[in-house]
Amino acid sequence: MKIARFGRGTWGTVRGDRVWVTVGPGGRRTGRAYSLDAVRLLAPARPTKIVGVGRNYRDHIREMGHPDEVPAEPGLFLVAPNALAAPEAAIPYPEFTRSLHYEGELAVVVGARMRSVPARTALRHVLGYTCALDLTARDRQKSDLQWVRAKSADGFLPLGPWVETDLDPQHVSVRTRVNGELRQDGRTEDMIFPVAQLLAYISAFMTLEPGDVVLTGTPAGVGELHPGDRVEVTVDRIGTLNVRIA
Amino acid sequence: MKIARFGRGTWGTVRGDRVWVTVGPGGRRTGRAYSLDAVRLLAPARPTKIVGVGRNYRDHIREMGHPDEVPAEPGLFLVAPNALAAPEAAIPYPEFTRSLHYEGELAVVVGARMRSVPARTALRHVLGYTCALDLTARDRQKSDLQWVRAKSADGFLPLGPWVETDLDPQHVSVRTRVNGELRQDGRTEDMIFPVAQLLAYISAFMTLEPGDVVLTGTPAGVGELHPGDRVEVTVDRIGTLNVRIA
Repeated sequence: MKIARFGRGTWGTVRGDRVWVTVGPGGRRTGRAYSLDAVRLLAPARPTKIVGVGRNYRDHIREMGHPDEVPAEPGLFLVAPNALAAPEAAIPYPEFTRSLHYEGELAVVVGARMRSVPARTALRHVLGYTCALDLTARDRQKSDLQWVRAKSADGFLPLGPWVETDLDPQHVSVRTRVNGELRQDGRTEDMIFPVAQLLAYISAFMTLEPGDVVLTGTPAGVGELHPGDRVEVTVDRIGTLNVRIA
Repeated sequence: MKIARFGRGTWGTVRGDRVWVTVGPGGRRTGRAYSLDAVRLLAPARPTKIVGVGRNYRDHIREMGHPDEVPAEPGLFLVAPNALAAPEAAIPYPEFTRSLHYEGELAVVVGARMRSVPARTALRHVLGYTCALDLTARDRQKSDLQWVRAKSADGFLPLGPWVETDLDPQHVSVRTRVNGELRQDGRTEDMIFPVAQLLAYISAFMTLEPGDVVLTGTPAGVGELHPGDRVEVTVDRIGTLNVRIA
């Protein structure tokens, strides 16, 4: 099932070229439907928090210049919900950075509260998966005390186009294209900490609530964006998140 | 006016030894009142995000071993809302740290949306002020990629007892006592970046929503806590936040 959010916050499920209105995310259908082309999709989650993982693909750790630092534990960071942006959003290039980078990722949307869940049952509490573009002000990531401006500026986390509930998160590709050119081409089999382990690690000290989002890290191939660029993040069996830098 | 939240999430205003139920924070009174002694107070804010400032008092920068690093810009960090705890909470000493520190602070609660507000008008968008205990796993602050476990574990941010709307935030003392002994005794006149400047700086890239919380930094005197300790954070004209480490 593909769970979408659209218009002023209506939830629905996508089938073919139509979106069927539901009562809440993944809830009962009301019988009303719209043409998918006609609706404005929103980020398909309303998180109380967004947790990211800094270094979860070996090849990305290598390209960031930390070749021997395969972490013993997930390196987490937070993104504030003001950063969320809709699929198809136009994100203004902010004036506080001269080095805006794309990072395409698989995002997890929590379905049920998790507190100290073991890895072997963690995926049962997941609503589904979607695509994320973790925009990063690389220069501010280095200069600032913590990654707040670097990761949580308004619009820095486009998410979507919808949440796919029926997906094995460890057997998909994550691809990022800039102006049509393939820049990142990773597979989730290469995660250092798979999704279930991430959820177990996080929920051991931080209760995860329905709607919360966990970003699972980016593969190699990150790089600069410029005004006018089109960025597409594609995850197999989910779809493509399409963003423009304005 | 003192705005409190209590019970299962009821809002009210405190006068003397009574709390009068209101419609929303600071809203119209319903006429119903409770004895303050009889109600269980909750953290008096429901933030979409919590923004902290790392180094905002010179004497604290000095004690942390960064004597010459008076920052040119505020050093921000995020705290996730799962960290919020009620006044009078008993916070379990977590098993992932051996160095749990208290940091008493003045907290700002946002009243109206702020996007790129100038410092000179920023305080108009504030609902009021309260006391915060920014519990910090000092060892994890050093060992982890970002300050997530260090600052955002469940219960790491007791807040309260209520929001005082009538306060000049730059002319109050912030005091922390552990087991009755005075450990921090700062004045907000000594902030490097006063509240209005912090709000202008943050809202330039991050839209602040009603209920959001901004922590304004801690003065000198931070130190270790142990199971069984009682911590009190007192801000003039607000009151005292009272926490126990379990």
